[in-house]
Amino acid sequence: MSIRLPPGISQNTLDGALRAFESALGKEWVFSSEEDVALYRDAYSPLRDEPEERLASAAIAPSTVEEVQAVVRIANERRIPLYPISTGRNLGYGGAAPALSGSVVLDLKRMNRILDVSESNASALVEPGVSYFDLYRHIHERGLKVWLDPPDPGWGSLIGNALDRGGGQTAVQYRNHFDAHCGMEVVLADGDVLRTGMGALPNSESWQQFKTGFGPWVDGMFSQSNFGVVTKMGFWLMPQPEAYLSGRVVMYKHADLIPFVDIMNYLENASVFSGMTLLGSPLLGNDLPGALPDPPTPELAELLATPGGPQPAQLEAYCKKVGKGLWSGRFQFYGPREVIEAQWKYCKKRFSAIEGVSFEDGELLEMPLSAQELERRHTVIFGVPNLRIFTLMGRTENSTGMEGHVGFSPIIPRNGKAIYEAQKVFTEAAREFGLPLSPLNMPLTYWQRAFVYIFLFPVTRDVETNRRNREAFRKLVKICADHGWGEYRTPVAYQDDVMETYSFNNHALRRFHERLKDAVDPNGILSAGRYGIWPRYLREKKA
Amino acid sequence: MSIRLPPGISQNTLDGALRAFESALGKEWVFSSEEDVALYRDAYSPLRDEPEERLASAAIAPSTVEEVQAVVRIANERRIPLYPISTGRNLGYGGAAPALSGSVVLDLKRMNRILDVSESNASALVEPGVSYFDLYRHIHERGLKVWLDPPDPGWGSLIGNALDRGGGQTAVQYRNHFDAHCGMEVVLADGDVLRTGMGALPNSESWQQFKTGFGPWVDGMFSQSNFGVVTKMGFWLMPQPEAYLSGRVVMYKHADLIPFVDIMNYLENASVFSGMTLLGSPLLGNDLPGALPDPPTPELAELLATPGGPQPAQLEAYCKKVGKGLWSGRFQFYGPREVIEAQWKYCKKRFSAIEGVSFEDGELLEMPLSAQELERRHTVIFGVPNLRIFTLMGRTENSTGMEGHVGFSPIIPRNGKAIYEAQKVFTEAAREFGLPLSPLNMPLTYWQRAFVYIFLFPVTRDVETNRRNREAFRKLVKICADHGWGEYRTPVAYQDDVMETYSFNNHALRRFHERLKDAVDPNGILSAGRYGIWPRYLREKKA
Repeated sequence: MSIRLPPGISQNTLDGALRAFESALGKEWVFSSEEDVALYRDAYSPLRDEPEERLASAAIAPSTVEEVQAVVRIANERRIPLYPISTGRNLGYGGAAPALSGSVVLDLKRMNRILDVSESNASALVEPGVSYFDLYRHIHERGLKVWLDPPDPGWGSLIGNALDRGGGQTAVQYRNHFDAHCGMEVVLADGDVLRTGMGALPNSESWQQFKTGFGPWVDGMFSQSNFGVVTKMGFWLMPQPEAYLSGRVVMYKHADLIPFVDIMNYLENASVFSGMTLLGSPLLGNDLPGALPDPPTPELAELLATPGGPQPAQLEAYCKKVGKGLWSGRFQFYGPREVIEAQWKYCKKRFSAIEGVSFEDGELLEMPLSAQELERRHTVIFGVPNLRIFTLMGRTENSTGMEGHVGFSPIIPRNGKAIYEAQKVFTEAAREFGLPLSPLNMPLTYWQRAFVYIFLFPVTRDVETNRRNREAFRKLVKICADHGWGEYRTPVAYQDDVMETYSFNNHALRRFHERLKDAVDPNGILSAGRYGIWPRYLREKKA
Repeated sequence: MSIRLPPGISQNTLDGALRAFESALGKEWVFSSEEDVALYRDAYSPLRDEPEERLASAAIAPSTVEEVQAVVRIANERRIPLYPISTGRNLGYGGAAPALSGSVVLDLKRMNRILDVSESNASALVEPGVSYFDLYRHIHERGLKVWLDPPDPGWGSLIGNALDRGGGQTAVQYRNHFDAHCGMEVVLADGDVLRTGMGALPNSESWQQFKTGFGPWVDGMFSQSNFGVVTKMGFWLMPQPEAYLSGRVVMYKHADLIPFVDIMNYLENASVFSGMTLLGSPLLGNDLPGALPDPPTPELAELLATPGGPQPAQLEAYCKKVGKGLWSGRFQFYGPREVIEAQWKYCKKRFSAIEGVSFEDGELLEMPLSAQELERRHTVIFGVPNLRIFTLMGRTENSTGMEGHVGFSPIIPRNGKAIYEAQKVFTEAAREFGLPLSPLNMPLTYWQRAFVYIFLFPVTRDVETNRRNREAFRKLVKICADHGWGEYRTPVAYQDDVMETYSFNNHALRRFHERLKDAVDPNGILSAGRYGIWPRYLREKKA
């Protein structure tokens, strides 16, 4: 059974609402058969096949703003909970399934118009159903010299990913997708439509040029929340750079991470490099983007299995023996050839302060790469979306045996000490909970100023295993919170748990979210429960 | 008479509230004498000495978060309108005077603690009373290698300027002060205190490292608004660069601005340069930062006075004759010597696509500059706050006869055509309204992606002149709105007028602001009227 009724709503009431949705959208865009609704299950749900699994009651797919307005009005009259999704592709963070079982999924996939792409000021205005593939194709067909910043994988929605505050992998100022947005159109729960920033000014040509407009800047309210349905959103794009260069810094001593991160911070905050930095270990072979490491040699495996973990001196000695580094950081540079060569040269100069460090110069590549050149590379760093990430952990020779995964993703302070501490915590957690440790076991550097550690929890077909893993996930949320590390994003199953840790002053922030919720969506029809924000009627029930 | 009572509040009720404030703060921090309250008048008010002038009833100065909480609770009980200011130095945009006459100014100047400055990750956490001077002194005394991004002038509050969404003049990613903030603490109207971003997580070390935390990102709501009292705010600072370079591109044909702006957009969006670009005209001598041009020669004055304005060909011929350019753009570069030299070289290469263009290389300066070297320079571009801007238009040989000014500051799309159009509109407006045209008559490039045009309206001691100018200001708001240009910020006297132009869908954005206001401050005690947001009781009165 893959369909649920909304709490307190009878089949009759739901059926009545579905008839009303059919009148507004046409019969073919209201899905209520079991097989249709099953498509909206979260393929990576850690609650799969359990009574707690979050399941929709139906799904509807409007194609215009006016239809979205009609839908929310009907839902408001009849108190039907809606769960808007853009394309529902955020696998590992919730997919298309609602936070509240019984919600009607409001699927915005048909709103897939690319409304504007400006080459001269490198921006785009799109609807929620536009995927990275769609926008890439549009740009490519017209030969426009702008890049998007795709995540792994590229089938998701630009708007969906930005509203979930996801990221990409090109230059640092474009990688934070919410931060790179400029201007929104939002349908509120009562059917009213507002435009933010310069979009509120009729005839403005700067909707995609100036973010904040006049008066309070409300855009942030609509990310990771349930305060409205975003129907248009602008993005700043990256002008196609002339060239690309990467370089690797290799370190040989365990303590080298401390000065390394400080120097890296200086260089990034001073904009000397502008791209992904993959922290990893040449010894472990986990410092190559887009690939999994080879299994360790028996000797290395034995060393790594030392009770309590190998000592720094042991690791350093082994590195020396096999002629590999212990740590490395990869830097990327986008821009004119002369500039990026000078930038990498300067980076090397600064990192030379770390005794014994060595450097590897990557190939200098002129942009754009040909299709053939792209074929053999990790293309997302060149602004080209793909789906290859699925080959990494799918049913290939690298198969992990997982059916899926969910991401546990805490923010870690950007200093070397925090890396050691995170490695310790996640190594212990993996051991304690019997979970696979990420081959990287290092925080990632998607964003400016802070690290994020992505620990993947397997999702299996075995309900008992999933239950154990859920308990482990919840324990890890608390362990991390005790270290001052909070998740930046989490699947619906854990959103209450994570929000619970953001508890300053007796949960003042959550109480503020609830107050906003009651004001902008008094009947609580939009995405009930998303990011721990429950409408009043369900809060009262819970209490 | 420089004191007003709040609407609907008797002297008795106000006196009772002042006694309660005295109990909470101590007698010496409650100001109600006419001479004390007069200090909170806006020295640049366009309503000065008229019945409409916005005047306070009293002022109070708490020194801790707990005292701010106590104050808002007292105000809430007694329905006393408060008007929080950080230091009240935003001359030209409202100063310390409230939007609603009779408000009690909540002066946060005593909350002037610098709570943290991180050199390794270049950030600061401060209270509202901390000025650019204060933070500069703190950093300088400790020899920390981080820069702040001061505006002209430097006596204002970091928090105040960021919440007004003001800007500075160093590297582009630090110039938008709201955008460069990271984390807030806010006292709500009911006395509750929340922390945003990672600040909501107890023990977090990344409050100044990761902006958005978990769930809706509410920070933007507290800028240009009246939804809470910000009591702490984090900022990203710029690591001290190794060197500084500037360069000038000079153009000789009227039409050159079109390709110039397109190339400039490419270079800025690709992060090839990173600093202020002053657009100006060598012919008019208005392309030197921090200085006013010399008066034109009689021949040039005659040319400029050509009815309908000089033709492009006339201007070009005159430029040729006197050996000066017609347009120029100045670029700044912060970073390692080798990098910024390569950047400027590449900029020249790209601008060479404009036929006949010439270049002037600025001096390459090693940072930090000595006190002596700073003395003779425009120091704000080196992160050093000062008050020299006042000598520009004060009672010097450059005196304009103004007593003060207010800024009329619309956002202009970033293309050459928009510059011509803006020049035409502002030239006509100056003529029609008998106002001084800015010597620059060009949009500024403070921020990424969009221009801002600052047209200064004089404020005089003559009530009739001020009245005429107010009418002109309001007309210009409408003229610009008809062009699709909206103000990014405005003095309190014009906030309703500007918000009126952000009218998409029957003022949906303003209606949304009002809904938020009613939810977070139901009694409307905070900054009534600020940025066009009036509490319910005053909206009803108006209607």
